[in-house]
Amino acid sequence: MKSLREMSAEELRQQREELIKLYENYKAMNLSLDMTRGKPSPEQLDLSNHMYDSLSSTDFKSCKNEDVRNYGVPCGIEDIRKVFADILGTDKDNLFMGNSSSLNQMFDGIMRAMVFGEVDSPKPWSQIEGRKWLCPAPGYDRHFRVTEKMGFELIAVPMTDNGPDMDMVEELVKDEKVLGIWCVPCYSNPDGIVYSEETCRRLANMKTAAPDFRIYWDNAYVVHHLAEDETEWGHLPDMLSLCAEAGNPNRVYEFASSSKITFAGGGISCFAANKDSMAYARKILSVQAICTNKVNQLAHARFLPTYEAVLDQMRKHAEILRPKFAAVSGILSEELGNDKDIWHWTDPKGGYFINFYVMPGTATNIVTMCKEAGVALTPAGASYPYGKDPDDASIRLSPSYPPREDLIKATKILTVCAKITAIDKLLEE
Amino acid sequence: MKSLREMSAEELRQQREELIKLYENYKAMNLSLDMTRGKPSPEQLDLSNHMYDSLSSTDFKSCKNEDVRNYGVPCGIEDIRKVFADILGTDKDNLFMGNSSSLNQMFDGIMRAMVFGEVDSPKPWSQIEGRKWLCPAPGYDRHFRVTEKMGFELIAVPMTDNGPDMDMVEELVKDEKVLGIWCVPCYSNPDGIVYSEETCRRLANMKTAAPDFRIYWDNAYVVHHLAEDETEWGHLPDMLSLCAEAGNPNRVYEFASSSKITFAGGGISCFAANKDSMAYARKILSVQAICTNKVNQLAHARFLPTYEAVLDQMRKHAEILRPKFAAVSGILSEELGNDKDIWHWTDPKGGYFINFYVMPGTATNIVTMCKEAGVALTPAGASYPYGKDPDDASIRLSPSYPPREDLIKATKILTVCAKITAIDKLLEE
Repeated sequence: MKSLREMSAEELRQQREELIKLYENYKAMNLSLDMTRGKPSPEQLDLSNHMYDSLSSTDFKSCKNEDVRNYGVPCGIEDIRKVFADILGTDKDNLFMGNSSSLNQMFDGIMRAMVFGEVDSPKPWSQIEGRKWLCPAPGYDRHFRVTEKMGFELIAVPMTDNGPDMDMVEELVKDEKVLGIWCVPCYSNPDGIVYSEETCRRLANMKTAAPDFRIYWDNAYVVHHLAEDETEWGHLPDMLSLCAEAGNPNRVYEFASSSKITFAGGGISCFAANKDSMAYARKILSVQAICTNKVNQLAHARFLPTYEAVLDQMRKHAEILRPKFAAVSGILSEELGNDKDIWHWTDPKGGYFINFYVMPGTATNIVTMCKEAGVALTPAGASYPYGKDPDDASIRLSPSYPPREDLIKATKILTVCAKITAIDKLLEE
Repeated sequence: MKSLREMSAEELRQQREELIKLYENYKAMNLSLDMTRGKPSPEQLDLSNHMYDSLSSTDFKSCKNEDVRNYGVPCGIEDIRKVFADILGTDKDNLFMGNSSSLNQMFDGIMRAMVFGEVDSPKPWSQIEGRKWLCPAPGYDRHFRVTEKMGFELIAVPMTDNGPDMDMVEELVKDEKVLGIWCVPCYSNPDGIVYSEETCRRLANMKTAAPDFRIYWDNAYVVHHLAEDETEWGHLPDMLSLCAEAGNPNRVYEFASSSKITFAGGGISCFAANKDSMAYARKILSVQAICTNKVNQLAHARFLPTYEAVLDQMRKHAEILRPKFAAVSGILSEELGNDKDIWHWTDPKGGYFINFYVMPGTATNIVTMCKEAGVALTPAGASYPYGKDPDDASIRLSPSYPPREDLIKATKILTVCAKITAIDKLLEE
């Protein structure tokens, strides 16, 4: 097949006509397909259906003989702190187990800094006019919304294949108003990038003007491998150790949750910090609540008692996810493979997304056309600060939730829309 | 038996000698008894051991067919919102279901006001220098700690048999720096007082200088009746309606949790607010987290599907608690009943505490002496702002957790210590 760039205007027009027919056919089908969010599918959730069976018994005791049904143990039971410490590659004593949402813990962390400051803050962040936050982009829209809501100016930093552009980051942190950075270091949302060790080291070592600069290290996909071959799995150094070695021990907060291991929004979450930051945070956390839900912690610890058990569970997830990711990228290759200079897309080894890069200036139109044909996609630009992609050139695809047949249909419609908008652009030129 | 007030100095000294002997005997027993906190006992927790059995099945659907294992339904499933709406006497649409701790929701509520202000705030509360908060005292120490931590000056308001001294409250709220009040309206902690309808009406109607004044209405014990006779149960008007009728619709946030219905710190919690406040809060809550734990909500809703089921469960709790409360007050009567002008204590119809009023200036000494004899009590003064009871005259007793035999022993030691310190005081006079 001829690539679009090689076609004459006449050929393009002819091609467009055929595509429009196809598009109208799809529209007439009154479809309702959804690729908007990184939600696990029912089959994935089924993997954990028996998690609570262990709680039907009369034994509600942690490994330290604590009754999980009662108040107490504010950091969470050791049974589960051990597992999550292994997931994050840190020590169980650095961990605080929260309730079901790690996003909630990130929000709360920044709220604490807003009202009380950090352990090493000259003053509470709410008192810093013109405070700023670094947002590697494309990135996670809900991260950006947290710091936007709290009055930070969001500074976009381009992503490279090794993580955020560190030359730019090192330059930006010379501004004392820059107080932190969002990071999804393993299988980044939405590009699936794994930060290189050099990126990690530079983040730990860089000189920041703000003495209380913080890295929000959201390890949301740290065990969420898709590749069958384990040598392809993402691997990260222990950021808490790197920061300590660099003489910036308070710099990083690490986060993880079981939302995409067991139940989404019904699992457990944690954050890790160094000794001083943790002691400081715990003084406030002990005012906020007596404890978090330890019954759920125990259920999780019994269901997934070791890191190896977690990896086994993740292999089962991957088996469900792989054919879906393959379906989407298969159709993209089939339909658009001839025009790799116009379109490209990521081939992630883990995580929840395929990021689809389209002709600049067409992403919004594509999403709108898809919507009209019954295919819901994440709004174009959602992965950028303030929801604005300056190039209007990427669309985040979430293959996890819909059944495979739906994904195939939705992706076909997507390619039809992508081609129509591209032809319109080419004809304008 | 002669009352202490009638005894001569010689008789008092003799009595003291005997009591000291008793005290030393107790000390030699190396006891370790704990009446510090309002924790449910293992027998109470056993009542809910089978709560998760319903989740072993393959059906994780809410009454609206939502899959509780996945993201979504940010306010919580209707199944459980209905039950808690009935508990609070309000409408299900006024409710937001949180995770396991209502204290956490109160903390978060005030944090939101600190950083963003309330829907009707001229500015965020963190910007109000010299902000103040009303603390009916004696009250709940963890409440006081929340507003203390957030930089409020805590203003003690004496409790009456009908709730906080409303003449004083109405006077104090003329100060625009006074931004809120803590209330435990039903079976107050620690006095077991139920607010009268007049108190509720005055709270709803009073003119506050701050336009964004808030009542934190912690209905922690709303269904926690101890009395067998239902006509003795505490009953409150619907505060959201009262505030709306009074033209102060945004004034109140109501809170409840299942910590002392099912599992302490492992249950579910909620808050209720009027339409505007809720819409405003939800805009922030939707940035904080995608949703709270709906799996736990469904487990609760299946275990306690109706208000009547909740009351049945509470009757079972009461059956376990009643003999314990009776043991404590029985010994207090037996040992101290002769000196009602020196000591008195509450006889609550619900809730978790007996408040023990002692000779002014002796509470701290009594707690210290008890501690040395192996009986842990809540620190004297804990029920007052900044942990300081100006009269040093009350001790909060928590009969729920220890076995009955322990309670009997602990209360006997307590009465010995109370008598010794009283005699010392009388001999000083």
